[in-house]
Amino acid sequence: MTEIDTLAEHLKTFATERDWGQFHTPKNLAMALAGETGELLAEFQWLTPAESAAIMEDGEAGSRVRAELADVFLYVVRLADVLGIDLIRSAHEKLEANARRYDADSYRGTARKAPPLS
Amino acid sequence: MTEIDTLAEHLKTFATERDWGQFHTPKNLAMALAGETGELLAEFQWLTPAESAAIMEDGEAGSRVRAELADVFLYVVRLADVLGIDLIRSAHEKLEANARRYDADSYRGTARKAPPLS
Amino acid sequence: MTEIDTLAEHLKTFATERDWGQFHTPKNLAMALAGETGELLAEFQWLTPAESAAIMEDGEAGSRVRAELADVFLYVVRLADVLGIDLIRSAHEKLEANARRYDADSYRGTARKAPPLS
Amino acid sequence: MTEIDTLAEHLKTFATERDWGQFHTPKNLAMALAGETGELLAEFQWLTPAESAAIMEDGEAGSRVRAELADVFLYVVRLADVLGIDLIRSAHEKLEANARRYDADSYRGTARKAPPLS
Repeated sequence: MTEIDTLAEHLKTFATERDWGQFHTPKNLAMALAGETGELLAEFQWLTPAESAAIMEDGEAGSRVRAELADVFLYVVRLADVLGIDLIRSAHEKLEANARRYDADSYRGTARKAPPLS
Repeated sequence: MTEIDTLAEHLKTFATERDWGQFHTPKNLAMALAGETGELLAEFQWLTPAESAAIMEDGEAGSRVRAELADVFLYVVRLADVLGIDLIRSAHEKLEANARRYDADSYRGTARKAPPLS
Repeated sequence: MTEIDTLAEHLKTFATERDWGQFHTPKNLAMALAGETGELLAEFQWLTPAESAAIMEDGEAGSRVRAELADVFLYVVRLADVLGIDLIRSAHEKLEANARRYDADSYRGTARKAPPLS
Repeated sequence: MTEIDTLAEHLKTFATERDWGQFHTPKNLAMALAGETGELLAEFQWLTPAESAAIMEDGEAGSRVRAELADVFLYVVRLADVLGIDLIRSAHEKLEANARRYDADSYRGTARKAPPLS
């Protein structure tokens, strides 16, 4: 069992023990994921790019960022499990598609022409 | 090397080959993550909960959802790598904290009292 | 002066009195807007569509929704002011463009073909 | 009739003519609002703060930002109308609450202590 499969199993058990499966439709989980992403954004909204790069050196802010990113990740894993999506496989497929779309020579050093990474 | 470490390495190489490291501040990556989450939301916004649960049976919509969730996941992995956060470890820690906060007996079957999962 | 102009003036004064103009770049304000939108989403995430339609009948939840939507609106107004965008005018232009794009006869009763309203 | 009331009326007619009222639950509209906010974010994600401040000078990017912000605003107005919320009034109430919470002397020049504007 991979580390993501193990986590997905734990999340499923967590939901089952609380009878929360009824709330975990893909629609609702996508909303919860977006809500957590909003909380993560809020940690960075007033920071300069340089301040954002040093955020983990600030104990309190660093802890909040770690916890918020964990929340986002938990919902990504739970949503993928509910939808039957293999996260690792689809991520590698998407990355390969991006590599074809944004060939290194054409897009070097510019984020203007197209959104990097996706 | 775990499956997430491998993916993080690929993403780092992808960014380096295009000289995109300069754009990948935590602030910018959090924004990109939120942008992709918005695209994922858009797939579910007009669906009933039941329709959302069956979305993978629709070939075209299913493919889009898989690709959007992959994009979200890629940014989660990239952001964690840039911040030096161990995703799997922080996810398990958050899940354990949630288990203490939402004990199964008190929160069974209700999502009203508190937000499930986080 | 219209009601939105008045509100924009108040927001500008509010920021100036706290010397917060330095933080109110369009990039940062867009992030803050998204963060507030995430808080609004969180109010609806576990509700059925029917429960969401009755949310204002619940005093506490209704107050939170009113406050969160106000926050979202405040950032929309502030961001438009900073960018020099006439909100009312651009909204009417967008609505007219949508009316041409989604003609009533072709799109009646279906949200599948295309995202309604935009 | 105020400018927002007029816009809300137009949006209502637009939805009615397409029989889209059935899709416009508060839950769905909040999702659509978040989806549009994500598109707005995407316009700013790779820009420096300074570049974001000059975005309207770029004809194409400026047009996209104007259109995306209009979309966000349209959903704010539509959601408020469906919920029976007076946007202008609740915005002024929220702003007054913020003025009490963030008194100018304590919060001058710092966005670290607390999130400005809300």
